[in-house]
Amino acid sequence: MSNYVPTERTQVRRLAKRGVYDRDVVYGILDEGIVCHVGFIAEGKPVVIPTNYGRIDDTLYIHGSVVSRMLGALAKGADVCVTVTLLDGLVLARAAFDHSVNYRSVMIFGKATLVEDANVKQEALRLFTEHVIPGRWQEVRPPTEKELQATTVLAIPLEEVSAKVRTGPPIDAEADYTIPVWAGVLPLQLTASTPIADQRLPQGIEVPEYVRKYSRKRG
Amino acid sequence: MSNYVPTERTQVRRLAKRGVYDRDVVYGILDEGIVCHVGFIAEGKPVVIPTNYGRIDDTLYIHGSVVSRMLGALAKGADVCVTVTLLDGLVLARAAFDHSVNYRSVMIFGKATLVEDANVKQEALRLFTEHVIPGRWQEVRPPTEKELQATTVLAIPLEEVSAKVRTGPPIDAEADYTIPVWAGVLPLQLTASTPIADQRLPQGIEVPEYVRKYSRKRG
Repeated sequence: MSNYVPTERTQVRRLAKRGVYDRDVVYGILDEGIVCHVGFIAEGKPVVIPTNYGRIDDTLYIHGSVVSRMLGALAKGADVCVTVTLLDGLVLARAAFDHSVNYRSVMIFGKATLVEDANVKQEALRLFTEHVIPGRWQEVRPPTEKELQATTVLAIPLEEVSAKVRTGPPIDAEADYTIPVWAGVLPLQLTASTPIADQRLPQGIEVPEYVRKYSRKRG
Repeated sequence: MSNYVPTERTQVRRLAKRGVYDRDVVYGILDEGIVCHVGFIAEGKPVVIPTNYGRIDDTLYIHGSVVSRMLGALAKGADVCVTVTLLDGLVLARAAFDHSVNYRSVMIFGKATLVEDANVKQEALRLFTEHVIPGRWQEVRPPTEKELQATTVLAIPLEEVSAKVRTGPPIDAEADYTIPVWAGVLPLQLTASTPIADQRLPQGIEVPEYVRKYSRKRG
């Protein structure tokens, strides 16, 4: 699979060895994440809002109410930066200065376009559910025409994209390796615990396997 | 403890019942989070970068290399929006449209100032480590003068601040409660797994309790 081409904005400068333009890496991060942070300019000032998303090929979709200020601004062609970050671990070095975190992040720059085609919109809504919890869509009531109309869906092309990845152990200054303190990595992951059934759930409806065995691990 | 005062920017409009201005709630979210997303404007366009942070009272600190473009821009007084988001669970409703997530997020608007006082800077560096992993600072080598000079620390006042919180079960349309599908909440949390010792760690250094028993739960 081909790589994204670095631009002035996506060229990773600081710690350039962490910069990644590989499509598979970018897709892997986007597909594992649940929340993205959407940055845009409102009245001349930056705003960052968390939201859910989905991806098909080289298009990222976000959605929300038709009365959302953010979506309204973006639908008019405002510049946007979407960032997805996965925290993989704490990197515990011998020196305070060399502490770090293992993470994978993707930054997407561009402009959003409003999805108006009803079929594409419906498909995007399926995608939002299946992105968060695969297997769910086929079991639930699909959106009505009215619900579709109440939802704004925006498409953001994956064109100007970069990833940053840090993995592996702490890197201390050579002289610090003799300091007698525990050093290494404490892995972190987003995990699910026991599902909480809705109080109005009728007797006899089992927890589905896609809920019981939920995991964000991908690929 | 007094509340933050909503401004034009922090007044939560969409789903206003989710808006929170209570200091304790804001502090709780900030103290549990590890990564914030910093939004600023570079060459007229929005940029969102993930980074670590720490908090003392009503000041949020971020830091990085003195050659960081982001910190350079912010140190000059650029407007900034810092957002911290904790994902608490998937909210599985009977209708696709009513699916949601339980989350807690904080948005901070303002301008950063450069921390130049060496004592405050040193204290902020302690804070960054202790925010991520309490108990660590006293065991590791503190920063040298040279390391301090290589680090930019910025302070962002917690003045124009809001939180958004969703908790609880799915809320379906009344007619949908008869749909025979499992509904409820799948709780999510960031959890630590088995620590991975650095390959160069000498024999006999045990994993400290603050690593073995690591948890982000606060308060």
